[in-house]
This record gives sequence, C-alpha cells and structure tokens, in this order.
Amino acid sequence: MTNYIDLNTDLGESYGAYKIGQDDLIMQYISSANIACGYHAGDHNVIHHTVKQAIENKVGLGAHPGLQDLIGFGRRPMTVSSDELYNLIIYQVGAVQTFAHLYNNEINHVKPHGALFNMASQDKEMAHVIAQAVYDINPSLILFGLSGGQLVKMGKKVGLRVAEEVFADRTYQPDGSLTTRTEANAMIEDPGEAVSRVIRMVTEGKVETVDGSDIPIKADTVCVHGDEDKSLEFVKQLRDGLRKQGIEIRRVGT
Amino acid sequence: MTNYIDLNTDLGESYGAYKIGQDDLIMQYISSANIACGYHAGDHNVIHHTVKQAIENKVGLGAHPGLQDLIGFGRRPMTVSSDELYNLIIYQVGAVQTFAHLYNNEINHVKPHGALFNMASQDKEMAHVIAQAVYDINPSLILFGLSGGQLVKMGKKVGLRVAEEVFADRTYQPDGSLTTRTEANAMIEDPGEAVSRVIRMVTEGKVETVDGSDIPIKADTVCVHGDEDKSLEFVKQLRDGLRKQGIEIRRVGT
Amino acid sequence: MTNYIDLNTDLGESYGAYKIGQDDLIMQYISSANIACGYHAGDHNVIHHTVKQAIENKVGLGAHPGLQDLIGFGRRPMTVSSDELYNLIIYQVGAVQTFAHLYNNEINHVKPHGALFNMASQDKEMAHVIAQAVYDINPSLILFGLSGGQLVKMGKKVGLRVAEEVFADRTYQPDGSLTTRTEANAMIEDPGEAVSRVIRMVTEGKVETVDGSDIPIKADTVCVHGDEDKSLEFVKQLRDGLRKQGIEIRRVGT
Amino acid sequence: MTNYIDLNTDLGESYGAYKIGQDDLIMQYISSANIACGYHAGDHNVIHHTVKQAIENKVGLGAHPGLQDLIGFGRRPMTVSSDELYNLIIYQVGAVQTFAHLYNNEINHVKPHGALFNMASQDKEMAHVIAQAVYDINPSLILFGLSGGQLVKMGKKVGLRVAEEVFADRTYQPDGSLTTRTEANAMIEDPGEAVSRVIRMVTEGKVETVDGSDIPIKADTVCVHGDEDKSLEFVKQLRDGLRKQGIEIRRVGT
Repeated sequence: MTNYIDLNTDLGESYGAYKIGQDDLIMQYISSANIACGYHAGDHNVIHHTVKQAIENKVGLGAHPGLQDLIGFGRRPMTVSSDELYNLIIYQVGAVQTFAHLYNNEINHVKPHGALFNMASQDKEMAHVIAQAVYDINPSLILFGLSGGQLVKMGKKVGLRVAEEVFADRTYQPDGSLTTRTEANAMIEDPGEAVSRVIRMVTEGKVETVDGSDIPIKADTVCVHGDEDKSLEFVKQLRDGLRKQGIEIRRVGT
Repeated sequence: MTNYIDLNTDLGESYGAYKIGQDDLIMQYISSANIACGYHAGDHNVIHHTVKQAIENKVGLGAHPGLQDLIGFGRRPMTVSSDELYNLIIYQVGAVQTFAHLYNNEINHVKPHGALFNMASQDKEMAHVIAQAVYDINPSLILFGLSGGQLVKMGKKVGLRVAEEVFADRTYQPDGSLTTRTEANAMIEDPGEAVSRVIRMVTEGKVETVDGSDIPIKADTVCVHGDEDKSLEFVKQLRDGLRKQGIEIRRVGT
Repeated sequence: MTNYIDLNTDLGESYGAYKIGQDDLIMQYISSANIACGYHAGDHNVIHHTVKQAIENKVGLGAHPGLQDLIGFGRRPMTVSSDELYNLIIYQVGAVQTFAHLYNNEINHVKPHGALFNMASQDKEMAHVIAQAVYDINPSLILFGLSGGQLVKMGKKVGLRVAEEVFADRTYQPDGSLTTRTEANAMIEDPGEAVSRVIRMVTEGKVETVDGSDIPIKADTVCVHGDEDKSLEFVKQLRDGLRKQGIEIRRVGT
Repeated sequence: MTNYIDLNTDLGESYGAYKIGQDDLIMQYISSANIACGYHAGDHNVIHHTVKQAIENKVGLGAHPGLQDLIGFGRRPMTVSSDELYNLIIYQVGAVQTFAHLYNNEINHVKPHGALFNMASQDKEMAHVIAQAVYDINPSLILFGLSGGQLVKMGKKVGLRVAEEVFADRTYQPDGSLTTRTEANAMIEDPGEAVSRVIRMVTEGKVETVDGSDIPIKADTVCVHGDEDKSLEFVKQLRDGLRKQGIEIRRVGT
C-alpha cells in the first residue's frame, strides 16, 4: 500500500505540579504530537513548553482537545450539545494554535481526546460538528480519527484532509471497531506481534480480527504511548521493525 | 483636547447556567466590549455568543483575560510568576481571538481584568510581561490600562498602541491613582457629577482630586457598567452629556 | 391518604460572584431545603450562608450533591464508576453536614441533583451506591427520590427512611416516569391545574397520565422552584390550595 | 527536653489520573499524615483511599486544607477574606473528617497547606480565623503550625492543643523564621547534618541559625517528605538517628 506511516503520541498532559509522561524521551521517536489543550489535561505553561519542544524536535504539532473534565482526564463519556461541542473545539484548538503562532508555526492536525474521540468515532452528528469546527478554524488542518470511523467520514465530507488511525496494541472486531477494553482479548500483549500487525496494516492494508478473519484497514498514523519505560521500548522496537520493511516514519500531510 | 471618546464595558461574564450582566442592552450604547475569556468568568459558549453579538452591534472586540480564579471572579490578588502571566495571556486572548476569526473579524484590544488590571497598573514587571504577550499575539492590538499607569507605559515601550482608561464613578488621588474602594470618598455617587467629570477629562484633560487640586489626565476610554438598571441609565446620561458637548463616542484606534 | 406534605426547593446554588435564585423569599414558603454542595453549584461561603438561613427559617436541612460539573450545572449525564459515586456523595454531604454541626444542627435529608437524580431514579446500581453512602454517613438521614423510582427502592433496602417526590409542573407516563422535557406535553403550564394535580396526588394517591389513565403515586414531598417571580407566585398558590384542603406543609420525617 | 517526636508528611496529593508521592512507602515510617482535602490537591477518591491507608498503617489522620488553587498546588499567596478563610477550612476539614467517620475514626490534627500555612504563620488574623474554624469543628483537634509562629499562638488562644513544627532540611533566621527558599543558604543539603539538627532541636530545644547563633525552638513534630527516593532514604536515616538517641516516633497528642 504505502511505504510510510505517521507515529503520534498524546503529549503535554502535565498540569501544574502534576507530571505525566516522558515527553522529552518520546519526542525523539515520533512524527506527530497531540498536545492537550487545558480542559482534560495540560495548562497554559505546559502547552507553551510542549509546543516549543515539538518544534525543536521537528515533530508535527497537533491540538488534542477533550471534554472539560480534569478529574476524569476526559475519559468519561458525557452528554454534550452540538453547540457546546463546536465551541469547546474552537476554544481549545484556538488557544493551542496561538502558542504555535508565537514561533511562526502552524498546528498540523487535530485529534479529539479520550471519550470525545470514542464517542465521535461512532456518532455521526458529533463527528460532523467536530469536523466543521476544525474546518472553520483552518481548512488546511488534518483531522485524526479511528480508521474507518465517523470522524474520518465527516472530516472528508466537510472538506478536510484526514488521517486514519490504527492501534498497535489493540485487537479489532470483524466490523472494524476496537474490542472494548473490558474484554479479555482486547489487548495485544506481545510487542513483537503488535509490531507485525502494524507492518501488515501499513504494507497490506489488512488486519486480522478476533474471529480470525482479515478485514481491510487504512493506516495513516499509529497511536503510540510514551508514559512508561516499556512503552518507550515498544516505540523503538516498532520504529526498527518498520524501517527494516522500508517503511519511513513521516508526519501526515507531508 | 480631543472631541471623541471610547466607552468600554466588561461583557460575556456569564458562565454555564449563571447569568451576569445585561449584555443585550448595554451593547447598544458602547463602542468597545471587553470579553471575559473563561478563566475568571465566561465560557466557550458565552464567548462565542458575545463575540457574535459585539460584531452585530458594531462594537469593538476586546479580550479581557483574568486570573484563573472563577470563584473569586479574578478579583483576588494572587502571586503569579512572569512565565505564567505571559502564558495565561496568550492562552486566553488566543482562544477569544479564534472566535473572532470565525467571523473574519479581529479583536481590537486587550484589557486585563480585575486583580490583574490593578496589579499591573502599578507593577512595572507585570505590565511589561502582559504588554509583551499582547504584542507577540498581534502587534496591532491596542492595550487598555489605567490612565498614567504601568500598563500604558509598558504598552508603549514594547511598541503597542495604548488606550488610557478613566473611571467616571471613582475619585482620584493627587498622584493619579484611584482612591481605594474601602475609603469613604472612593465613589462618585451623583450621576450628573460623574458625567461632568468625564466631560472635563476629555475636553480639558484634567480631573479634580480628593484634595481639591487639579491633575492632568489622559482619557482615551471610559469604563462603564451595564449590569444594573441604574448603571444602564447612567450610560445613557453619559452619552447624552458627551454628545451635547460635541464629543463623539468612537472605538479606540479608529 | 395523608393530610400533610413536604415542599422542597433547590437552594444555595449561587457561586462566587454568580447569584442564582431568590433564596430569601422562597425560604418562607417551604419545609425542606436542598443545599448545593459545591460540585455542580454552591461554594463554601454560599453553603454556610444557606445552612444558617435555613436554620433561621426552621426549614429542614438537606444536602444536594451533584456531579462535578459546574459549567453544566450537574445536568449533563456522565459516566461515573460506583466507587467514585460513593466517594463524591460522602465528600459533598460530609462538607455540608459539617456546616450544620457548627449550629448544633443535623441535616435531615439528602437529595441527589440533576443528572445524578435522573440517572439514579432508573439505575438500580447507582441508586444502591448512593443509598449506601447516605446510610454510611448517618442512618437517620432521609433519602429523597423520584416517587416509585430506584432511589426510593434502594433507600428502603439499605435501611433508610425515604421521601417519594412528585413534580407539580411535569406530566407523567403510564409507567410512572416523567415525560421527558423535549416532548411537547412534558410541562403543566397552568398553575391552577398543577395545584389540583398535587392535591389529588396527596389526598387520593393518584395522578392522571398523558394517555388519560390514572396511576397510583406516593407523594411525600413536592419539588417547587423559587428562582423566578412566577415560580414564587406558584408556590404561594400551591400552599393556599393545599391548606384549603386541610393539607399541612410539614417537613418529612416529622 | 522530650524523648519523643512526631513525623508528619503531606499525603493524598494525587488527583484523578495524576499521581504524586509514594504514599504506600512513606506511610510505614511516619506517625502523622496530612491528607490533602481536594482544593489544592487530592480528590474524593484519593481522600478515601488515603484515610483508609493511614488507618491501616496506624498513622494519625490529619486534614491538610489549602487554597482553592489546583493549578498552583496551593502554593501561591492569594488574598482571602476572613469569612472565606473560615468557610474553606470548615468545608475541607469537614469533608475529610466524614471519610474518617466511615471507619469509626476521628482525625487527629489539622495542618494548613502551602501558602495558607506560610501566610498564617505570620498573619495573626488569618491564624486566628483558622484556629477558630478548627476549634468549631472539634475542640479536640490538634493544630499544626510553624514552631513559634502565629498558628501556634492563636491555636492556644482559642483553646486548641497545638503541635509546633520544625523542618529538618531548612535553615533558620535569628528571629526563628525559615530562610526563604530563594536564598542560597535556605536548604540543608547534607542528610547527616539535617538529622543532627533535628536531634538537637528535640533533645536540647535549640537550633543554630544562619548567623551562627543558637535560638530556642520547640519541636513537637517534624515535616518529612516521601515523594522521592532520596527523601524516603532520608526519613529512614532520620528515624534511625532519632532511635539511637532514645527518641521515640510518636503521634502528637498521644
């Protein structure tokens, strides 16, 4: 299929005295940074620092807006009206974008966070509102969404470029959705297997689902984590594996 | 001195289910709106609504950033480092600016709120940091500050246009500072007297202080309130009084 | 059925500079106050003031815990784990209770607020957790819940006294649930009709549903509002109507 | 002087997904836990967990109320009115106390946090308000304050038992105040020296100040940290050092 892939990570999730993640380390291995915008994580100091750090590391800048739920880290599904959804995207992406402008940089992409990402992957109306908000901020932005999900569909519909995201450490259902985390077989525990699956998604455009069947899948970007030592180790392994197959790590849209 | 003046009001201070102000009414009488940015008051929905409303009323858009203290409405002095101060200005002004861009509009000015305004009027370092942040967002922005205070001085120093603000309902000390609210003679209670004082500040560039002496004062903009029926009444009276003197109500910078 | 009824109102919903409600006025007409606890509304100053005011007006003290969602006023359904639900009840009710203790008073009841009330009226597990938390704080507390709903059932199950709540201005479905507010016929607009319905619920234990059929309903307490002039007017009308029928307004549990 | 001392640590400072501290480890070495109450750090889940953990470890329970400033971790001085100060103590201590009651336990002490502690150590009025609030919650509570400071004086004045707190890793001025952290000689870097100083404070009631003179100091409790490996190491060293001198680690008030 393609011979390149984007690696993205959620970054800038610290808040005040609270530190999360090993941003300094993971920055060296990825091509896109999803920067928390201050609602579910991150604050104005952290955003500034992370934007600067991503620019220095030549990592693509992304805004990572979430629900206004710091205590729940934006992971708890919540009822949000369409107007409110539109406005919370504008506010958060706008704030992060302004830090990028300080350095004559532009953000490259927007990826909704946590419960917002999950809800909008399945909910057409929510996906449409998010896509429209991103488009209204800047039609050149790239919208990240679950591969094959509503964010991708609605992003295209409103005229945005999109990046279809796959997960290295999660299993897939025959309908292309992720197995929910509460299921026993939700996670791919073996790093080697995870790497192989990503390589196949990129090179063949296929992934094996939990029932053993293959389904087509588009992989523009892979979500990787950098908060633990073993996740850092996995990222290195994934990079090496991809490179051996001649697959370049490259920011989406370039 | 001049034959025009700007009238500015703090607007968009509602938050979720909480309503403050009579924004719809006061919008008709003023030339500049200071829109709360979500830290001390306002939220993403209120900001969007207020930006739209100000545009429809041809009122100059201003960002009104404050301390991150919703419960204290940004009125409580708080120790803030220079880095944090810079970043909280960027974040808040950036967010509001993005809503203006949705309507192909630009914000015209920035006025710090409450404790931030008061502290920065006297603290050179704080004033400098705020002025620099505003300049870095957009060097065309106009910085509002207490007439003769540090915000005005530092604004000019970094290369911004400034608007020197006077208060219709407050008394002045011989050194040009406002009498603190805890003093018995801090407020001008009589609307007629308040109107006369503003007219004199605009036309003669002078104000009588609490000890009976006159001091020079520059009046580019007057802060008026619209949250109570009597404050609305006062604004109308002030407009009429100014017009009778041939003084036009005009947005700063135009 | 009975010849007395409790009238309860949500109070103490102001926050910092934000004022909601006409607590001073409504206090004179009701028998139970549901005091916001600082999560969806209210703050430590407002709680103290409202507790004192309720004691002075001999109104029954109640804690009114909600979801941690100030911007949504606790009205937005949100996924909350059982552990978190238990703890947020303990925290909020504990805080309000401590203010009551300052005056050698005890809170009399607990009524979950907004989305928490609605979700727990239908969700057995949530209702059970809330009831258990209230019991663990003080087994003498009375739990308020939608008449016939899960809060009432689970409250009884864990050994609490309960108060079944009815709504004067809402229509009922044949299954005893409230017609959702988005439906055209959800509200009873005519105050006279609303009063008649409440009287019938109290004296006959019946209410007419939207399909014209009667269903049995238990009415220990009626929720009334005091935030607008017309709602205050309605409360007076309801009190007069009830008294004419010989129905006493009396705090639950007395 | 005495042959026992209390070791206290700030605990339960995690918040939602944000983890701070090595509570599990430090719990084994201390006699009093200062549990964050949800304003500057901690949340209802963390409080519950920490209360339970302290009880299991037979560590004295303390409430650690702070300013309502999560992003500043309660470390930023802020103007707070006396009424507000009183109410924020009642609210926070009341909430934590209620979790203790779930286990038929009582909190043993209250220690204000961060900026609140520092301001109240010097400000008589603030110290008085805090002491009165603690007394009004429960006159049996022990108030922790800087040795020789206003919290200790006002605590005694209102009728509370107090614990005078010393710092192992900080230097003292001739007037008994701590050298501010911005000074070069503010910290005692050598663990051995820190241990010796504490032992001398306990056994002789004296500490050498930065100018080489000795001043009298009362040491009822020592503040120790457990958030880093080296701070844990220090606590062990301190315990060993104290024990060798025959000084018992014992909760205050026992």
